[in-house]
Amino acid sequence: MDIADRKEMRIFSGSHNLELAEEVAELLGVSLGRLNKSTFSSGELYARVGESVRGFDCFVFQSHSYPINDAVMEQLIIIDALRRASARRITAVMPYYGYCRQDKKVLPREPITARLMGDLYMAAGADRLVSVDLHTGQLQGFITKPFDHLTAIPIISEYLSTVTSGDVTIVSPDAGGGKRAEKYARQLDAEVALVYKRRDDHVHNYSEALAVTGEVEGRHAVIVDDIIDTAGTVCNAAELIRDMGAASVRIAATHAVLSNPAVKRLSESGVDEIVVTNTLPVPAADQIPNLKVLSIASIVAKSVHAIFTEGSVSQIFLGENA
Amino acid sequence: MDIADRKEMRIFSGSHNLELAEEVAELLGVSLGRLNKSTFSSGELYARVGESVRGFDCFVFQSHSYPINDAVMEQLIIIDALRRASARRITAVMPYYGYCRQDKKVLPREPITARLMGDLYMAAGADRLVSVDLHTGQLQGFITKPFDHLTAIPIISEYLSTVTSGDVTIVSPDAGGGKRAEKYARQLDAEVALVYKRRDDHVHNYSEALAVTGEVEGRHAVIVDDIIDTAGTVCNAAELIRDMGAASVRIAATHAVLSNPAVKRLSESGVDEIVVTNTLPVPAADQIPNLKVLSIASIVAKSVHAIFTEGSVSQIFLGENA
Amino acid sequence: MDIADRKEMRIFSGSHNLELAEEVAELLGVSLGRLNKSTFSSGELYARVGESVRGFDCFVFQSHSYPINDAVMEQLIIIDALRRASARRITAVMPYYGYCRQDKKVLPREPITARLMGDLYMAAGADRLVSVDLHTGQLQGFITKPFDHLTAIPIISEYLSTVTSGDVTIVSPDAGGGKRAEKYARQLDAEVALVYKRRDDHVHNYSEALAVTGEVEGRHAVIVDDIIDTAGTVCNAAELIRDMGAASVRIAATHAVLSNPAVKRLSESGVDEIVVTNTLPVPAADQIPNLKVLSIASIVAKSVHAIFTEGSVSQIFLGENA
Amino acid sequence: MDIADRKEMRIFSGSHNLELAEEVAELLGVSLGRLNKSTFSSGELYARVGESVRGFDCFVFQSHSYPINDAVMEQLIIIDALRRASARRITAVMPYYGYCRQDKKVLPREPITARLMGDLYMAAGADRLVSVDLHTGQLQGFITKPFDHLTAIPIISEYLSTVTSGDVTIVSPDAGGGKRAEKYARQLDAEVALVYKRRDDHVHNYSEALAVTGEVEGRHAVIVDDIIDTAGTVCNAAELIRDMGAASVRIAATHAVLSNPAVKRLSESGVDEIVVTNTLPVPAADQIPNLKVLSIASIVAKSVHAIFTEGSVSQIFLGENA
Amino acid sequence: MDIADRKEMRIFSGSHNLELAEEVAELLGVSLGRLNKSTFSSGELYARVGESVRGFDCFVFQSHSYPINDAVMEQLIIIDALRRASARRITAVMPYYGYCRQDKKVLPREPITARLMGDLYMAAGADRLVSVDLHTGQLQGFITKPFDHLTAIPIISEYLSTVTSGDVTIVSPDAGGGKRAEKYARQLDAEVALVYKRRDDHVHNYSEALAVTGEVEGRHAVIVDDIIDTAGTVCNAAELIRDMGAASVRIAATHAVLSNPAVKRLSESGVDEIVVTNTLPVPAADQIPNLKVLSIASIVAKSVHAIFTEGSVSQIFLGENA
Amino acid sequence: MDIADRKEMRIFSGSHNLELAEEVAELLGVSLGRLNKSTFSSGELYARVGESVRGFDCFVFQSHSYPINDAVMEQLIIIDALRRASARRITAVMPYYGYCRQDKKVLPREPITARLMGDLYMAAGADRLVSVDLHTGQLQGFITKPFDHLTAIPIISEYLSTVTSGDVTIVSPDAGGGKRAEKYARQLDAEVALVYKRRDDHVHNYSEALAVTGEVEGRHAVIVDDIIDTAGTVCNAAELIRDMGAASVRIAATHAVLSNPAVKRLSESGVDEIVVTNTLPVPAADQIPNLKVLSIASIVAKSVHAIFTEGSVSQIFLGENA
Repeated sequence: MDIADRKEMRIFSGSHNLELAEEVAELLGVSLGRLNKSTFSSGELYARVGESVRGFDCFVFQSHSYPINDAVMEQLIIIDALRRASARRITAVMPYYGYCRQDKKVLPREPITARLMGDLYMAAGADRLVSVDLHTGQLQGFITKPFDHLTAIPIISEYLSTVTSGDVTIVSPDAGGGKRAEKYARQLDAEVALVYKRRDDHVHNYSEALAVTGEVEGRHAVIVDDIIDTAGTVCNAAELIRDMGAASVRIAATHAVLSNPAVKRLSESGVDEIVVTNTLPVPAADQIPNLKVLSIASIVAKSVHAIFTEGSVSQIFLGENA
Repeated sequence: MDIADRKEMRIFSGSHNLELAEEVAELLGVSLGRLNKSTFSSGELYARVGESVRGFDCFVFQSHSYPINDAVMEQLIIIDALRRASARRITAVMPYYGYCRQDKKVLPREPITARLMGDLYMAAGADRLVSVDLHTGQLQGFITKPFDHLTAIPIISEYLSTVTSGDVTIVSPDAGGGKRAEKYARQLDAEVALVYKRRDDHVHNYSEALAVTGEVEGRHAVIVDDIIDTAGTVCNAAELIRDMGAASVRIAATHAVLSNPAVKRLSESGVDEIVVTNTLPVPAADQIPNLKVLSIASIVAKSVHAIFTEGSVSQIFLGENA
Repeated sequence: MDIADRKEMRIFSGSHNLELAEEVAELLGVSLGRLNKSTFSSGELYARVGESVRGFDCFVFQSHSYPINDAVMEQLIIIDALRRASARRITAVMPYYGYCRQDKKVLPREPITARLMGDLYMAAGADRLVSVDLHTGQLQGFITKPFDHLTAIPIISEYLSTVTSGDVTIVSPDAGGGKRAEKYARQLDAEVALVYKRRDDHVHNYSEALAVTGEVEGRHAVIVDDIIDTAGTVCNAAELIRDMGAASVRIAATHAVLSNPAVKRLSESGVDEIVVTNTLPVPAADQIPNLKVLSIASIVAKSVHAIFTEGSVSQIFLGENA
Repeated sequence: MDIADRKEMRIFSGSHNLELAEEVAELLGVSLGRLNKSTFSSGELYARVGESVRGFDCFVFQSHSYPINDAVMEQLIIIDALRRASARRITAVMPYYGYCRQDKKVLPREPITARLMGDLYMAAGADRLVSVDLHTGQLQGFITKPFDHLTAIPIISEYLSTVTSGDVTIVSPDAGGGKRAEKYARQLDAEVALVYKRRDDHVHNYSEALAVTGEVEGRHAVIVDDIIDTAGTVCNAAELIRDMGAASVRIAATHAVLSNPAVKRLSESGVDEIVVTNTLPVPAADQIPNLKVLSIASIVAKSVHAIFTEGSVSQIFLGENA
Repeated sequence: MDIADRKEMRIFSGSHNLELAEEVAELLGVSLGRLNKSTFSSGELYARVGESVRGFDCFVFQSHSYPINDAVMEQLIIIDALRRASARRITAVMPYYGYCRQDKKVLPREPITARLMGDLYMAAGADRLVSVDLHTGQLQGFITKPFDHLTAIPIISEYLSTVTSGDVTIVSPDAGGGKRAEKYARQLDAEVALVYKRRDDHVHNYSEALAVTGEVEGRHAVIVDDIIDTAGTVCNAAELIRDMGAASVRIAATHAVLSNPAVKRLSESGVDEIVVTNTLPVPAADQIPNLKVLSIASIVAKSVHAIFTEGSVSQIFLGENA
Repeated sequence: MDIADRKEMRIFSGSHNLELAEEVAELLGVSLGRLNKSTFSSGELYARVGESVRGFDCFVFQSHSYPINDAVMEQLIIIDALRRASARRITAVMPYYGYCRQDKKVLPREPITARLMGDLYMAAGADRLVSVDLHTGQLQGFITKPFDHLTAIPIISEYLSTVTSGDVTIVSPDAGGGKRAEKYARQLDAEVALVYKRRDDHVHNYSEALAVTGEVEGRHAVIVDDIIDTAGTVCNAAELIRDMGAASVRIAATHAVLSNPAVKRLSESGVDEIVVTNTLPVPAADQIPNLKVLSIASIVAKSVHAIFTEGSVSQIFLGENA
């Protein structure tokens, strides 16, 4: 008995980002795979795959949003159900990689939870991971299976190019973000500036003040970061940049974690615009004036299509991802 | 350089059962190991081991109580921190094994989350597990590392023997609980009865009614189960037993999951007493009259001591565990 | 160089069930893959794959019949030969899963041989397992690779429907078999009865007698179990049911282990018919009057075909397997 | 809680070599660990560890004698029981390594069962292996855990030195056994001769005859091999050597597999003596005149003691093992 | 979304055998996959895959030639890059398997580096290995993944048949090479002779001299081995054979390691011809008169094609490989 | 048989840093473990452990210096020999972690060789790693076993404090080294300055110039980095700092890779002093005037002692490592 090998794909979504998954599915002209999900009163999660996936190329979407541990566990459970149901390949799509900032020990006897995350996904049966704008590139090294690394910078840059005109300066809010700022600058043909901490001699006992390298006066400033969590860093940078006479101040980032007190800080920051993407759902979108949420669905859809058809993913990003 | 090998033990506790861990530690005459725990606004958990554990025999306690996924993730993170901190051996103590009831596929394409749990603990670096009154014995087979299985039945039986007198009947609330009922019966020198479902001819369309095998009239009945979750099964059995003329009706179980609407059902059940243990914290204890919570600290402490000193655990239970 | 991916399948059979494998192969219109098997005088087994299987989807059949350890070892050796010969995927088909009843520790320091079995097959290179009517569903959790679980209940039920008429009662010979009895009852539109152990007051020192819940008098009784090993349980139940006035008594089970003294017991049981399948060869078939051996070849063939063509297996069983 | 780490050892024995294990235990002044073993009518084996082994250094003896697959499976099951019972370390002692001759592919699509054996023992939880006079040294490379390789050559040589006097020639019965012959020769201060196959010109169609390199006429010849299986090779060599005028002819080997027709061949061989060891039980000992069975218990006991106390094993053999 | 599964292949080459890889690629009508390789001044190697390989069947060629550790590391790094780039399958092609002679412990506490090599390739992500004329067949057992074993003996034999005429004797230069000599003899319809070590009575203190079994006088002798390293063994044999009156003397081997002082020895050996293959590059080819280097490209190309198209590899060699 | 568990330690050294290992051994009052090492003409390495290490706690030192792949392979081979020789625990000590800078993908389809390194050490049998001043903290996450991270900053700082007086400024030669500079500054009570790249408006086409944040004029500047490879970055920074009027300029780094043209650049840099450590041998030490090589032997010795005796390693560094 000799038959041609065909393959089919299916996108499944956890409970934390149904909208994004549906948008991606629509772009690809497919409907979402059926999942019977429920939560027991005890907090235990349940997920049953509602259709045959034997031999299918399955993508399991989940945003690692609050409550993140439920998000992770639900995604692991779906993966387990799929492997037992004979899926051919299971790709865990996590636009924001949870626990990404616990990627090294800063103090003795800390965990490295970002690596643990990789181990958990491998233990559950994931064959590959997909994420967007990883906090550090080393995260890819936390697994040995393929890990497609997408970037939302082209999407954000393109939007910024429509709302800014004249001289633009991309500002990194801390010393470590120089390379990211340069990526944005290349796409927007802009200058780069860097906020850094300077020892303040007027203050007692080794206090620090922020300072800036590069031109911002009279220019349109865009402060760029990968994650906005409590928004302290970007808001401090924004205040400084505005004080230095920037013509306008924008904040842009891929991942809108927006933990408390981010909403308050951003609302009161007085910046002209805050630009983020929907790698995480943004329930606070209505509470923050001037917040613009861009969709990453197009790049995720293209990447899923490339993975399924085994075309190049890096070509989608002109090699700017890695 | 040649030295004698000594070893030290340390008990660490996750956030979900600090009281039980402290009680065990006190019984063993040790203090709890230091852990710096915190929860970020994003929901991500953090745990740092606050003292050297190099070469230590470490026990990590965590109750898999609501919100259970946070409980599991916190325990996994502590285990990761300990292995990276060079602990000699890490024993995960989970008095109630979360997701234990998802131990097989009842419908096609279900996950087997109880097995996934085992894989996650192994992936994080646990060297062995300890749990109490497992839902099914096969759970031990979900890992290949040692899995000590304790039982709280002697503790519950001993208490029951102090509150009941005269003729006692142990009642299993469903057909599958016969062996458990017999274990209690042996310890209390009691009779056994079994509630089962009977096709009710008076009702249309294959309806069922409960029936009982064995003597309950005029006797002190104790309905025994391993888990009380929503309490439907035990309360239905209690009603039936009372209607059949039992002299008194008690409910006893090891694990008090007590999901909604258990509190309401138990409060209104009219039983003489409900006996559970603290394998899970029982925040609703005050809301349920006649609820007695027994502590398993003594058997856990003895077992931890035996594991550390490499004495027999089964001897603690006279071979009644396995 | 770019070619279309095709795939071919091949069925190989160990020495313990050549007939079943041939029957399945015939139903699928294929011939059995060539194997050069031999047994050295020392008892060591040898098996060489006699044709190229590079890239093939291979199914290795073996009945875990007496002598079971030879059966298991032969299957493992064939699997090793196939993986080294570059088979694309290797499915171990074991209609009866050997050592399935050693699936948990009943006494301290027992092995869990059913889990060990899973580990051995994974170590040898099996990519998936197929079995029929598993003793407990948790066996699927003993591996993390796919495990297709077929059921012979529809085959047995269909046969029973042709030999019984009028009122039928499905009898579980012990308290734990209730769910199996209900599955049969749904297919035969029958009543359910349950044999259970009752404390016998007339006998000294905690003796037990069997009792029945449910209607059997004047009805056609079918005692159903998964395995008939020494046949003690089913024959005791048969005697009881007959004494209670059943119109006819049948015994039905999927797996005919038939260890000593099963042949004697069944021959002398006086039941109207004993119905089993050929998941295991039944060499004693001629010695037991009224023994009917049904073939599972049709469901195995359909399942193998579904696995190869990546169609749904559960659909074959209308979701009654899992 | 801080205690000194002590350790205890225990020897367990499978059913195939109780005598050897008891002899070793007696030499070490310990008694055998308790095992409850049984065989079900279905052929399934059962073994329960009969005493606490928590933290113990356990040695599991098993001869891979007929029926070999039962021997292997029993040893694997005991190992599984021990690891689940929290043994600290489990050493599988297999004086003769079963399936050792299936260590490479001679024809395409053969298994490499000797490697599979290593994988099975690792899967069951063995921490190390011990064997005697391995068929090829590469077997040690089939696992990555420690594998102690003992040699019985000193025991056999010592015996031979007591029964031979005058000029001795050690004869290898085939071209590949030269190194083994040299080992014996060094210990006995003997000459070496080699039997090889020579194309026989007097016979048509590429026939072969045996020939010998080295002096045997008038000398005491000892034909040495590692395994005597069907005894064809050694008996052919013996006939040749005797015809060439050897003063006496002996056959010596470590492992007495003695498959059919070895007993007949050896009995009729007319050699002066056949010397083997008890790495395998020799039930045919009474049927073969002039058969001498030497015990390896002393070297096994010394090695077990060295492994337990972490002394040098190679020193026992003066570095002649490896 | 349902598509036919196609697959493409690509050959990549490390720095140590570009010529062989190009020859193979040309035979297959493909061009080599792009690799950006470089060596940092620190000696660290770098290799980036220069084109999309998503879903490709990739073959990574590398000769384990001097400096061998660079060769191995470069191959491992290319494999790592490919797996992270989502290659479907990665086959490491190492015509000569480095460290193959460290395949067992000859002295206590030696490594088994040949097994370590297998573990390193598996750790890097290789899915299968391909090598030519393995030093011992057990090397295949050092991995559990498929290991295609090619043989260059047909190529060498065919060449020898064109340069020799009349009576040919194949000579094994040591006792262990008898089977290899027989393989050559079958292909060339030749006699076999064996060089062995004989105790020399005229020399004091257990000295040894070489001797030969079989006819060589007046015949065309071909000394065959798998590896020529320092060339001592083959040159000693050549001298002996010539002294015994051979009509001509040739040396043939698959692998030309040619370590110092092989070049000097072979140049001064006075043999009629030395025949090797290009499993390793032979930079000394110009310095050795009468050296003939045959290309294995044809058999490698056929094998790579068979692996890619899942045809039989053993058929290429008429089952003479294994 | 019941004995106290004792343990012994042994330090072994690869060929690349015998001096450091001897210095550490001397500080600990032990002698180096015996290793028989050799290199075959073919480039293959050999290492045999020259004494019993059964049950020993073994430390295998190797500097990953040129030729680095030989260094890595030699260390892996020694580890393999030790595990097969029954070492209890094997710690690979690599003061400089080779390939550490290939820790992420900067371009698509790159390898992550630093992770591959971790996998190779795990595959060979290392139980833990020890390294000094890791290039990035995420390297610890590339393995899941313990990884002790030492720091030489206290040693370098202490030396610097003896050669500098007055106002000191610690200079990071690039934007990413801020945290390292702050660590030095805390220990030396110094200011911090940061060299960064500034777009130079006077030059066409997006050229860059270096600029400095912080005070350096009239102060003693110390440029600090983790690795000096080709020395371009630090020498450029040194030139800039000197031009800005620093009172003195020093360069300090832990790892002296010193690839070409580092020696030339440093020799011509005109800096007052270059301070490095012996994590790597510095064969060019004589060619670079003003080069000071500090020994890390003391911190390695203390750490090895702590690991062996299971004391705290982080305490040695007052928690400044992690």
